Amino acid sequence: MSPEDAVPFLDYASVLVFALTGALVASRAQLDLVGFIFFATLTGIGGGTLRDLLLGQDPVFWVGRPGLLVLTSLAAVLVFFTAHLFESRYSLILWLDALALAVAVPAGVDVAIGAGAGPIVTVAMGIITGTFGGMARDTVANELPLILKQGELYVTATFGGAVVAVVLIGIGCPGVWALIACGVTVFALRAGSMLLGWNLPTYRPRPPRNKG
Amino acid sequence: MSPEDAVPFLDYASVLVFALTGALVASRAQLDLVGFIFFATLTGIGGGTLRDLLLGQDPVFWVGRPGLLVLTSLAAVLVFFTAHLFESRYSLILWLDALALAVAVPAGVDVAIGAGAGPIVTVAMGIITGTFGGMARDTVANELPLILKQGELYVTATFGGAVVAVVLIGIGCPGVWALIACGVTVFALRAGSMLLGWNLPTYRPRPPRNKG
Amino acid sequence: MSPEDAVPFLDYASVLVFALTGALVASRAQLDLVGFIFFATLTGIGGGTLRDLLLGQDPVFWVGRPGLLVLTSLAAVLVFFTAHLFESRYSLILWLDALALAVAVPAGVDVAIGAGAGPIVTVAMGIITGTFGGMARDTVANELPLILKQGELYVTATFGGAVVAVVLIGIGCPGVWALIACGVTVFALRAGSMLLGWNLPTYRPRPPRNKG
Repeated sequence: MSPEDAVPFLDYASVLVFALTGALVASRAQLDLVGFIFFATLTGIGGGTLRDLLLGQDPVFWVGRPGLLVLTSLAAVLVFFTAHLFESRYSLILWLDALALAVAVPAGVDVAIGAGAGPIVTVAMGIITGTFGGMARDTVANELPLILKQGELYVTATFGGAVVAVVLIGIGCPGVWALIACGVTVFALRAGSMLLGWNLPTYRPRPPRNKG
Repeated sequence: MSPEDAVPFLDYASVLVFALTGALVASRAQLDLVGFIFFATLTGIGGGTLRDLLLGQDPVFWVGRPGLLVLTSLAAVLVFFTAHLFESRYSLILWLDALALAVAVPAGVDVAIGAGAGPIVTVAMGIITGTFGGMARDTVANELPLILKQGELYVTATFGGAVVAVVLIGIGCPGVWALIACGVTVFALRAGSMLLGWNLPTYRPRPPRNKG
Repeated sequence: MSPEDAVPFLDYASVLVFALTGALVASRAQLDLVGFIFFATLTGIGGGTLRDLLLGQDPVFWVGRPGLLVLTSLAAVLVFFTAHLFESRYSLILWLDALALAVAVPAGVDVAIGAGAGPIVTVAMGIITGTFGGMARDTVANELPLILKQGELYVTATFGGAVVAVVLIGIGCPGVWALIACGVTVFALRAGSMLLGWNLPTYRPRPPRNKG
């Protein structure tokens, strides 16, 4: 399987899982079913849409594949009728979001390489594809964007995964394995951050000097 | 009149009415005249701009029709000098926004059909053209986005109108009547929601069980 | 030097200075180094990216010049290790932002003219290139957008500079001088507003009448 063949699968998978997180955020905002569909779709297709716009892929990926919009709508219906079964919807959002990141970053890397982008732009596209849908979801819903949570790896996880993919492809690793390694890296960094507290040092202003 | 002929009129009308709502939001934020023009323009052209970007219509519609930017500026000037005459600016925003939705959704549907989009993408473009300008307005101005107001039909109204247009065109109804029916449906659903409390059931988490 | 030759320099300078403001906002949110890079890049390339999308310049400017992303990353690293040296990071953000505006508006004007835009669209592109990166920075970071600060010239400063450029070019002034005059105007208006309190009258609702 060439990496190009993986794109449709990765796109469908990341759209579906991000759509589930969007619908769960809609449940926290207590919207109606169409509001669920709106947030599921915004979150599901947001990152890949920005990626396609930036790379000049006209029209964007879902315009030619309307089945993706059916998929986000079905995800919304599913969540609308089952969200009450979960004890902690917020923690479910966090874990589904981690899974979606782990699929969306390789999808973004793959499309960028297919469009002839160099390594730096490819890393940027992986990060954008991974983070933008969730950022749009959280900004529109007035939730704290996950990228602002202090002491957690989030953008860093997507950055790490995208770099792994670019390096592996650069040294001649078959594309499909590079994409798998990319996804595993993203998920491992994010999960390690949530479960084991992995993090990078954050910026802290110097404490005020004791004037006493 | 073919539906294509209706586009310029619909675009001008929806840009104008959305611009009025943007200027009214600027009045709530107590900005200066240029701030009014900024919000009027952002709100007026936001939805159609995103629609054109997604469909790959380069450049976007107002680049070739700068008169639209003059129109949003005039709307801003008008509101700057007359907004104090209205007793409830918020309720004026709500009603003008409903009117703008009722014009913008058919405009979006029409452009999507002209670009060769299928029914699902056409419905999505109607919703996007209708909702995105107001969403940008409310997000940038730190107002509660109207799409998050619980118990009101908002995205649902645009969805209903877009579906009506696509179904009518699908069964052979002349395009211009389908677009009129679309706008009437959007406005009726939104007005019924504001005046008569029409709504769809919203998601509610189960109440905690009584442990007593 | 033709104005076209000035674009790469203006783009690099505005990307760099906006990137510094983005990294300073990341320091206020106490993010890690990758978070700094994210905000520096979002702020640095945001305005020019939207400008290129609207004008149909595919792909956007930084896809072919990855050095720009290296530049925003270096700006982020610099701020991460030195921000604690500054007593008032907020006032540093304001002044760097003013400087970035003064470079980004002429860059936007120049690209718009190069793409064949007329005077009104050119002014709009100057404003968009100047304001959008900072707006994205403030919205995503949950800071009060600078364009909403009452009684300060912000959008107005970019508007004034863009109009100066378009008028000067219209009366036959060499492009490079028009761009310099544009940048000086933007900075002078913004600095005069911050230091001397220059402003335009803002909208104020009428005080309620005394019913006594």
